[in-house]
Amino acid sequence: MSIIVLGTVALDTVKTPFGKRKELLGGSAAHFSMTARLFDKVNLIAIVGNDFPQEHLAFLRSKRLNLSSLIVDAGKTFRWEGEYSGDLNSALTLNTELGVLSAFKPQISESQRKIENIFLANVDPDIQEHLLHKMLSPKLIGLDSMNYWINTKRKKLIKLLKHIDIYVANDQESRDLSGENNLIKAAKCLSSFGPKMVLIKKGEHGVLFYTRNGFIFSLPAYPVEKVVDPTGAGDTFAGGFMGYLAKAGKINSSTIKKALAYGTVAASFNVEDFGLHRTSRLTRLDLERRLTEFKNCFSFS
Amino acid sequence: MSIIVLGTVALDTVKTPFGKRKELLGGSAAHFSMTARLFDKVNLIAIVGNDFPQEHLAFLRSKRLNLSSLIVDAGKTFRWEGEYSGDLNSALTLNTELGVLSAFKPQISESQRKIENIFLANVDPDIQEHLLHKMLSPKLIGLDSMNYWINTKRKKLIKLLKHIDIYVANDQESRDLSGENNLIKAAKCLSSFGPKMVLIKKGEHGVLFYTRNGFIFSLPAYPVEKVVDPTGAGDTFAGGFMGYLAKAGKINSSTIKKALAYGTVAASFNVEDFGLHRTSRLTRLDLERRLTEFKNCFSFS
Repeated sequence: MSIIVLGTVALDTVKTPFGKRKELLGGSAAHFSMTARLFDKVNLIAIVGNDFPQEHLAFLRSKRLNLSSLIVDAGKTFRWEGEYSGDLNSALTLNTELGVLSAFKPQISESQRKIENIFLANVDPDIQEHLLHKMLSPKLIGLDSMNYWINTKRKKLIKLLKHIDIYVANDQESRDLSGENNLIKAAKCLSSFGPKMVLIKKGEHGVLFYTRNGFIFSLPAYPVEKVVDPTGAGDTFAGGFMGYLAKAGKINSSTIKKALAYGTVAASFNVEDFGLHRTSRLTRLDLERRLTEFKNCFSFS
Repeated sequence: MSIIVLGTVALDTVKTPFGKRKELLGGSAAHFSMTARLFDKVNLIAIVGNDFPQEHLAFLRSKRLNLSSLIVDAGKTFRWEGEYSGDLNSALTLNTELGVLSAFKPQISESQRKIENIFLANVDPDIQEHLLHKMLSPKLIGLDSMNYWINTKRKKLIKLLKHIDIYVANDQESRDLSGENNLIKAAKCLSSFGPKMVLIKKGEHGVLFYTRNGFIFSLPAYPVEKVVDPTGAGDTFAGGFMGYLAKAGKINSSTIKKALAYGTVAASFNVEDFGLHRTSRLTRLDLERRLTEFKNCFSFS
């Protein structure tokens, strides 16, 4: 059981109260992969330009990701520049350069078409649809998006959600796409668009999970005192969540709650340092230890 | 083991997206008592004016609260008028009439002085101190306050915190009193003022609990789809929390987490209707049933 993730591999320039870092390796697919790889073989589907540093390619390869469908195209790699202040809950985007991403058409091998666990991380819904059409036997499809696509490609996104098992959104996105302020109402509305399950990430406030048959799961965040850089926390969450579910091979209330907990602790590591610095060193043992600590934050008999 | 609660008994006029209600029975001590009574005998220490409706007195009496130290004084009962809109997370105060509350000096009986479980709900810190000085053998002292006192009687409040076991605050109050934005840092700072434990209520985002010896507990909120009136939710939380701890008779990580869970489900009932409408009908069985549902939202093996 391996996982395919479609998304971005990017060069991120980030400023937070803890400093500024230029052209860090980042992007939704890269962040997702850093924790999903701890559970299962990850196939990374993305595009970079021919300016993409060889050391980053070597780094991704060293993480045992299948990069056979990572396209290196003539042109510039996707770049994002953002700044966090105050409570670090939301980023101010200073600059975005799409580069080769603007003409991205994912290509995958015949064997990759058979992969059953699929995560469509945040890219243009047209690109997400393009990949989804190639998949032969999807068993579990997750999709993440962002406000930009909710605003500019709303119909396309809603159409795409008909084919999705789990829609992953942050609180603001789920409010924007549903038009509902209350997050449970928002989740219900989003589920009515198609997804059997809706996962709403609330940053420092944890996560809310809604299933169409009426279950609601909710976890607090793992308490982190020093948030250095939250970039990619949501994708890291999704990587731990989907990674565990793919490995577990079955979906029920027990595996979902455990997957949410893995996502939570994975994200807590991500925010403790810039870019992929912490998650690239992460081991399964790190995750297990923090999972135990996390459970102790709320479990009682 | 009984409980003494000092606070307000008020007439609340509330407007929410679900309607307007005039001069509802409310106040911090009344809301606290509605759930604390399900665990233990509650002694209500407050003041009302001689305009206070007899039916409200009869109602409080019917809830088996000890009202022997509820003063009925010549003058007007404390009134509060507020409005909620949007996500109902915070109230806009439209009007406050202190009435007899401005000259309140709590008086209690000799037997009440021996009560070991004390909750100083939100009133002037001078009044809280006045009562605390009367107590002979406090074992567990909780204190709640509000932004008005944090701004106008900051030194007095901080001085009072030296004698408190559990400081109860909402997220904004804890940020304002500590000067820290991150809630864990805020809790650490507040604990350094004296309290062994700090309970930060985050409304729809649940609760964070910090103990000076380094434990952090965190629970999500119970998912409520229709929030009708959040007035008194924090005091209701405190009532369930303190009620359970008083009854349990010991403080450890297990009883604290369970007390936080009782507080959470108690508060979830409170917000489902105006004023005390729902919590006044609450039974221990209601609490137990919802506690089980609540545990299922996050517990996994």
